[in-house]
Amino acid sequence: MPGTKVFLLDGGSLVLDGFHVFWNRGPAGEIRFPVYSILIDHPQGRFLFDSGYDYAHVQAVLPFEKPLQTEAQTIPGALALLGLTPADIGVVINSHFHFDHVGGNKFFPHAKKFCHAAELNQDANPEAFEVLGYSDLSFSAMAAEARGKSAQLIAGTTIENTAFEGLEGDVEIAPGVHLFHTPGHAIGHYSLLVEFASRRPILFTIDAAYSRKSLDTLCQSSFHIDPVAGVNSMLRLRKLAEERDAELMFSHDAESFSGYRTGPDFYA
Amino acid sequence: MPGTKVFLLDGGSLVLDGFHVFWNRGPAGEIRFPVYSILIDHPQGRFLFDSGYDYAHVQAVLPFEKPLQTEAQTIPGALALLGLTPADIGVVINSHFHFDHVGGNKFFPHAKKFCHAAELNQDANPEAFEVLGYSDLSFSAMAAEARGKSAQLIAGTTIENTAFEGLEGDVEIAPGVHLFHTPGHAIGHYSLLVEFASRRPILFTIDAAYSRKSLDTLCQSSFHIDPVAGVNSMLRLRKLAEERDAELMFSHDAESFSGYRTGPDFYA
Repeated sequence: MPGTKVFLLDGGSLVLDGFHVFWNRGPAGEIRFPVYSILIDHPQGRFLFDSGYDYAHVQAVLPFEKPLQTEAQTIPGALALLGLTPADIGVVINSHFHFDHVGGNKFFPHAKKFCHAAELNQDANPEAFEVLGYSDLSFSAMAAEARGKSAQLIAGTTIENTAFEGLEGDVEIAPGVHLFHTPGHAIGHYSLLVEFASRRPILFTIDAAYSRKSLDTLCQSSFHIDPVAGVNSMLRLRKLAEERDAELMFSHDAESFSGYRTGPDFYA
Repeated sequence: MPGTKVFLLDGGSLVLDGFHVFWNRGPAGEIRFPVYSILIDHPQGRFLFDSGYDYAHVQAVLPFEKPLQTEAQTIPGALALLGLTPADIGVVINSHFHFDHVGGNKFFPHAKKFCHAAELNQDANPEAFEVLGYSDLSFSAMAAEARGKSAQLIAGTTIENTAFEGLEGDVEIAPGVHLFHTPGHAIGHYSLLVEFASRRPILFTIDAAYSRKSLDTLCQSSFHIDPVAGVNSMLRLRKLAEERDAELMFSHDAESFSGYRTGPDFYA
């Protein structure tokens, strides 16, 4: 879409074991990886895709993930690098509701919010093995109440100002901004493809493939609800990238991320 | 069933990482765990449930699992401790077709063989992430040919003498010998419950719950095809144990196994 710019909001980093990042294969050992959000500055408005993790939440609930996050790596801090505030963002879309993708949602009570419909139930009634993934409930009064975690909600949070519109299947949420349903890691997981006027599209795998190595080896992360769907989603991403001549960008890949544009630098 | 005895055939041990044994939870680090098979000496004949791993196969294909197996821990060696040879076994049942449950099948060309029907396709067409689990194909000429691994077959192996009868759902394969379909770890996974004349039944979880801790915490192993089914299978095993006042025995639990009867000692 002419006029579309994509900014990556660096959100700091976390640590997992190699057996988490590369399911069953590893090798073992700590891997520190980036977390980032995607700001689409579009002729129809500013769309924020995901919102990173909340430092205090991770320290309290998942300290073993060893969060490192500067002030400039919070959502308000990262937006400030672009001369923006949360009030400048009209739409928030979450790829899924794991804690490292919804941590900054609390700054957007005014925004319209979208997700895959399946996530709306999953965060309120997760599988036993998903409880830590869906541990930050500050983004949804409904989910927090369902899980008995209303204490996580900041002042002013209501059912209304944390309501989502649930989507089904693949959706072009704005011209040239495509959500592709890629379940496996989470039941309602969306990957994102953004088209530009004068460069190749970018296909953000999000957590369907943490890294280039994940996609090359079809090795999904150890966090998943349906690993068969997870493999199919990776195969679909490979095909989409080829069919649309898209540049692939990965969610949690330190090596790839070191070459990505962040801060005021952008893709257009 | 009056006259039923159960012998456990110690099959040696293997090593996995804590993140394999306890999915996503760990902690990390090597865990050495036992592998064993179950001989049911029944009024209707001798039933062998599973057949352990083949040392040479593991050394060749999965040496990182560090197999330790003495001659007495091979299937012929363990049977010899009871004064038996493979020829004395009329029926072989496999809980599923992972390498550490089928390694000794090659000694039973004469036996009738049973498994869940779903395993018959899965070993021939595994998911990408199941390839190592289904790596020992010496038990099935059909699977070995489908996977291009006929070199694994020992002399004399034929489609006919490695044919299985595929079962569906729960089956009482002989009076007091119950197979319960407990999918998740493998699509066609069976757990085993054996009834006796004068003691509590024994419910062998097999790989639906590697250990007591797995079942207590509902933490399945990291090797699985359907983790939602895996949790449901564990809940089902808990319920079965309660309803039938069964003693639970676990497949890969060094602490529990140290108290199990092996060799000529038996349960009856």
